[in-house]
Amino acid sequence: MATAGKVIKCRAAVAWEAGKPLSIEEVEVAPPQAMEVRVKILYTALCHTDVYFWEAMGQTPVFPRILGHEAGGIVESVGEGVTELVPGDHVLPVFTGECKECAHCKSEESNLCDLLRINVDRGVMIGDGQSRFTIDGKPIFHFVGTSTFSEYTVIHVGCLAKINPEAPLDKVCVLSCGISTGLGATLNVAKPKKDSTVAIFGLGAVGLSAMEGARMAGASRIIGVDMNPAKFEQAKKFGCTDFVNPRDHTKPVQEVLVEMTNGGVDRAVECTGNVNAMISAFECVHDGWGVAVLVGVPHKEAVFKTHPMNFLNEKTLKGTFFGNYKPRTDLPEVVEMYMRKELELEKFITHSVPFSQINTAFDLMLKGEGLRCVMRMEE
Amino acid sequence: MATAGKVIKCRAAVAWEAGKPLSIEEVEVAPPQAMEVRVKILYTALCHTDVYFWEAMGQTPVFPRILGHEAGGIVESVGEGVTELVPGDHVLPVFTGECKECAHCKSEESNLCDLLRINVDRGVMIGDGQSRFTIDGKPIFHFVGTSTFSEYTVIHVGCLAKINPEAPLDKVCVLSCGISTGLGATLNVAKPKKDSTVAIFGLGAVGLSAMEGARMAGASRIIGVDMNPAKFEQAKKFGCTDFVNPRDHTKPVQEVLVEMTNGGVDRAVECTGNVNAMISAFECVHDGWGVAVLVGVPHKEAVFKTHPMNFLNEKTLKGTFFGNYKPRTDLPEVVEMYMRKELELEKFITHSVPFSQINTAFDLMLKGEGLRCVMRMEE
Repeated sequence: MATAGKVIKCRAAVAWEAGKPLSIEEVEVAPPQAMEVRVKILYTALCHTDVYFWEAMGQTPVFPRILGHEAGGIVESVGEGVTELVPGDHVLPVFTGECKECAHCKSEESNLCDLLRINVDRGVMIGDGQSRFTIDGKPIFHFVGTSTFSEYTVIHVGCLAKINPEAPLDKVCVLSCGISTGLGATLNVAKPKKDSTVAIFGLGAVGLSAMEGARMAGASRIIGVDMNPAKFEQAKKFGCTDFVNPRDHTKPVQEVLVEMTNGGVDRAVECTGNVNAMISAFECVHDGWGVAVLVGVPHKEAVFKTHPMNFLNEKTLKGTFFGNYKPRTDLPEVVEMYMRKELELEKFITHSVPFSQINTAFDLMLKGEGLRCVMRMEE
Repeated sequence: MATAGKVIKCRAAVAWEAGKPLSIEEVEVAPPQAMEVRVKILYTALCHTDVYFWEAMGQTPVFPRILGHEAGGIVESVGEGVTELVPGDHVLPVFTGECKECAHCKSEESNLCDLLRINVDRGVMIGDGQSRFTIDGKPIFHFVGTSTFSEYTVIHVGCLAKINPEAPLDKVCVLSCGISTGLGATLNVAKPKKDSTVAIFGLGAVGLSAMEGARMAGASRIIGVDMNPAKFEQAKKFGCTDFVNPRDHTKPVQEVLVEMTNGGVDRAVECTGNVNAMISAFECVHDGWGVAVLVGVPHKEAVFKTHPMNFLNEKTLKGTFFGNYKPRTDLPEVVEMYMRKELELEKFITHSVPFSQINTAFDLMLKGEGLRCVMRMEE
């Protein structure tokens, strides 16, 4: 590779300060250091989390910063000690990693890697505490170890899933974050059986991907719960058979669901992060076998409250992070689900714009329009 | 059988009113009706639940009543429609049943039978709403469908587990309730792996049986948590390696356990019913893979509260009823565990008295002495 070992100059969308439109700049991207990989990003999508840290409300601001974490790319060069990836490999960057050596990585049950677990406040590489991005020699901070709003970025090898090179990166790039989060919550954690009843709370991209998981698992009744009745039409494409708007009822929505289903749903997946929705999702599952799974991130001061008899009646409450997928071990198989046409990704990608129009993607997200907007880096 | 189809007169311990010593009386026991079985009880043990409903504080009193639900006996005769049991079969009566036909019985995951689920207020048989016990023609009420404080009792076939006739009834009688409840909570629900760390909250008979399950599963570190330091010595026989008394610490006990175990225990089983212990049991499990199981029955007005991030960090909270054992399907195998010497029952049986001294068993329980007192019906 002509560029290996050298600084690469390329375009990146820089967030100079909180809430201000991103600006496309020429940045210098340093070569990867030990255990790092420099990746040429071909497609990146916008996720709500990017917007959240761009708005930076109630947070310690980390600016200037290159956001972005849902993406697909090709390895340009690798740093010392990287043996699993070589230039040319197709990869999905992931905001949380898998070192393969800590107690979590060695546990079959956890994906909360001790070394590379998501860290939203860190703006530098973990190896040397430095940024690999500069403009005129001044550092620009990283975001969740990925910073995919750049034509080239440097990522720890533990945060890159090597995938089938036949997979179209403009589609599978959305598996980097939200879609896998919802999908895995259902397939890996809730694990509905064929012909079961599943309730999904919150019909955004994550909720619809949880619903896609229920459809793939063969659930025969899939109940969407959302305050916005307009979401039902779109949800039907993901297998939604019933829609419940809590605002249409005077009684708590969990009671509505229990009555609709003769005792409760078999599985519930909560994707809003609202603590009352979490309580409803738990309380609406059937006694004896019901399982509720929390996905949405709660407010710092939220308190989950319920009567403990709900547990004694053999209801289970679990939560999940990134759908319990281990990024390097499990994401390649999620890509294969798409390749085998079991998982449908096209319906999540409602918009596509050239990278230069990244602020349009932000506008769509802020207006709540569409699910995923994929940006084409080469345009 | 000379007695089949006839009323049997025999001795029973009758609770005439709340909190008054039981009185051994001659009672008439009617023949079993459809789907019922008349059982000769050979051994019965006293469980805290008997004492609770004998004290009848804050309850609708159901007296006069024949209490008792932990026992072993032999089928004397069967009613119409009973095909699974014949006279001479050895059985364990169970306070909750398994009809084998409802949605719960058909689910692999639930033991909360719709037809025969525990009902503490009902004092009659479900078939005809009548009692099978009388004294001078006046009905004496049943208790949780078992009423084993009688030489003969009538029980729905769905509440009887047919067991290996080689099994000593004076030992396996304690599997009818408490010991199976704790054991199953660990083996069937918490499912600790070999060499894992398990915390048990509350070191009474149920907690120690949960501990016995942890020992059997090969847990290498078993932490007992109890307010009474005297319980540690006894708990060592059940595999207890560490003891924590919450009163010895100023910080919440969950923090103590997390520090002791470098991040949390792998499994926790809560056997006190105190809601604060429930919260501690949940919060002390390790992120990524920890599972807490609630066994103790909470106060009616208890509220379980925790920060929902504890769930998002991949901790699981479950509850169980009767250790998730289906009485008829699963108890025979628990008896076999004892026969294979995997499960040790002798250490639970700290006292044994003739049936005529049943009030001694109550006294021991009220003083908190010992674990199980087995009564020999023929004495």
